[in-house]
Amino acid sequence: MSIKEYFAEGKRVVDQAIDELLPGEKEFPESIHRSMRYSALAGGKRLRPILLMAAAEAVGGDRQKVLPFAVAAELIHAYTLIHDDLPALDDDDLRRGKPTNHKVFGEAIAILAGDALLTKAFHLMTHSGLMHSVPADVVLKAANEMAHAVGSAGTIGGQVVDIESEGKTIDPETLEYIHVYKTGFLIRICVRTGAMLGGAKPESLAALSRYGAHIGLAFQIVDDILDIVADEKELGKDVGSDLERGKATYPALYGLEESRKKAQLLVEESISCLESFDERADPLRDIAQFFVQRTY
Amino acid sequence: MSIKEYFAEGKRVVDQAIDELLPGEKEFPESIHRSMRYSALAGGKRLRPILLMAAAEAVGGDRQKVLPFAVAAELIHAYTLIHDDLPALDDDDLRRGKPTNHKVFGEAIAILAGDALLTKAFHLMTHSGLMHSVPADVVLKAANEMAHAVGSAGTIGGQVVDIESEGKTIDPETLEYIHVYKTGFLIRICVRTGAMLGGAKPESLAALSRYGAHIGLAFQIVDDILDIVADEKELGKDVGSDLERGKATYPALYGLEESRKKAQLLVEESISCLESFDERADPLRDIAQFFVQRTY
Repeated sequence: MSIKEYFAEGKRVVDQAIDELLPGEKEFPESIHRSMRYSALAGGKRLRPILLMAAAEAVGGDRQKVLPFAVAAELIHAYTLIHDDLPALDDDDLRRGKPTNHKVFGEAIAILAGDALLTKAFHLMTHSGLMHSVPADVVLKAANEMAHAVGSAGTIGGQVVDIESEGKTIDPETLEYIHVYKTGFLIRICVRTGAMLGGAKPESLAALSRYGAHIGLAFQIVDDILDIVADEKELGKDVGSDLERGKATYPALYGLEESRKKAQLLVEESISCLESFDERADPLRDIAQFFVQRTY
Repeated sequence: MSIKEYFAEGKRVVDQAIDELLPGEKEFPESIHRSMRYSALAGGKRLRPILLMAAAEAVGGDRQKVLPFAVAAELIHAYTLIHDDLPALDDDDLRRGKPTNHKVFGEAIAILAGDALLTKAFHLMTHSGLMHSVPADVVLKAANEMAHAVGSAGTIGGQVVDIESEGKTIDPETLEYIHVYKTGFLIRICVRTGAMLGGAKPESLAALSRYGAHIGLAFQIVDDILDIVADEKELGKDVGSDLERGKATYPALYGLEESRKKAQLLVEESISCLESFDERADPLRDIAQFFVQRTY
């Protein structure tokens, strides 16, 4: 299977699971459920859940068993996008080529839909009926690490620093903080919890955590590059919008070529973390390669 | 110990635990941590964690063991208040006699602080190091029930219907829905998870769940009554503000006297659920009585 087919297949599995695991549009109160589904099912590559399942398979685990947890990671990603797009934060009107959640449902419902997706994520992560074949203490630990990664010392902390840096000249350390915490942490923890739930031994878990850290940072750099070079229509959001807002980005600080080199290096480092793994880790290797190719 | 002393002692324990379990004000990024602490440590009766600990003790459990989970319930309560007060929702300037979170920290940080408190709550609930003496499967189940209770089919659902009912004439069923889901569900689940974590047997758990359901609804009715009759200074928020906004309340629909009777009846029913419990359930009995006394 090519990496494109791998992503397409993963996306199909994740989309179907999100559809099944979220409350239906007709469940009362309808407005919140329509709003949750609007954003959670608005497309996207499903990179985080695909990485999570790939990490589980790399250590001999079963993707089906970790699917609810993978969906939870995607719901967390969806909630962060809804809240980031709000007028009080990034004030974005478009997301993946569609009006942002608050543009369709209003700010109040958008705030609550974000809250509800985050809450639903933890409902899924702690659902022993869905995660029945994984030991409870492992599930608990994975949910705990996820909560840490997306909290004030993780994703939210990165977002705070990002907001507070807008329009300011920032140093490389701050830029790295924003990228590691705002985006990298969740990607890393997806790889890590996938491995944990898949039954990884300590040394495999450590290696996959390093893989996840490298690829998480690479992803944000690639995203910054795409914000500048990609065709607006293809990306479905305002190209160059980060630059207009004076957002801290790699290309703004280091230039395009240096950013590409940095991403390439991180991808190579991530793949080198997988040396002791067999062919079951090939999807993780391919995903890493795929990342950096997008920037050319 | 009188019920007032019991509340004071419980509040002291909970306040101290919140202070210890939340990141410090100087932890980076400072703004989010100051914002989280501002609201989580802004006072309040700490009714939810006190009920949770009392339920654990009623079945022979240890309040110290369930304290992190009790703190989590209070952090969830605090996050709902921050988000409810936002301009896009209730647009309140005052909460417990102090400026609301967004008035002090701005809307962006207030939204993210709410998100971070909710996330921190699940971090605490899934923290096996903190909950070390409770079996992992019980902790997982309790966290799962909490997530369900505060999601789109619980607290958030109630808030959605409340917002959508503003300024409209609503029927008694809708009013009951709002109260049960917006407030009652979390109170009930605090009693329930406290009992679970305290090692309750199925029949005790069922009885305490019924107690929690009655007292949860009673609390909201009492709150509605107090919104009308209490002295503004004492309550620390705009008295009669619900009425002004055309909010659905019990007194607005049934009148003050009928609402008091309904609260009294619910309190009696809640206490009758505790018949098979010994004196270790006395605090739960006293808390119920205390509720309804506040309305006179």
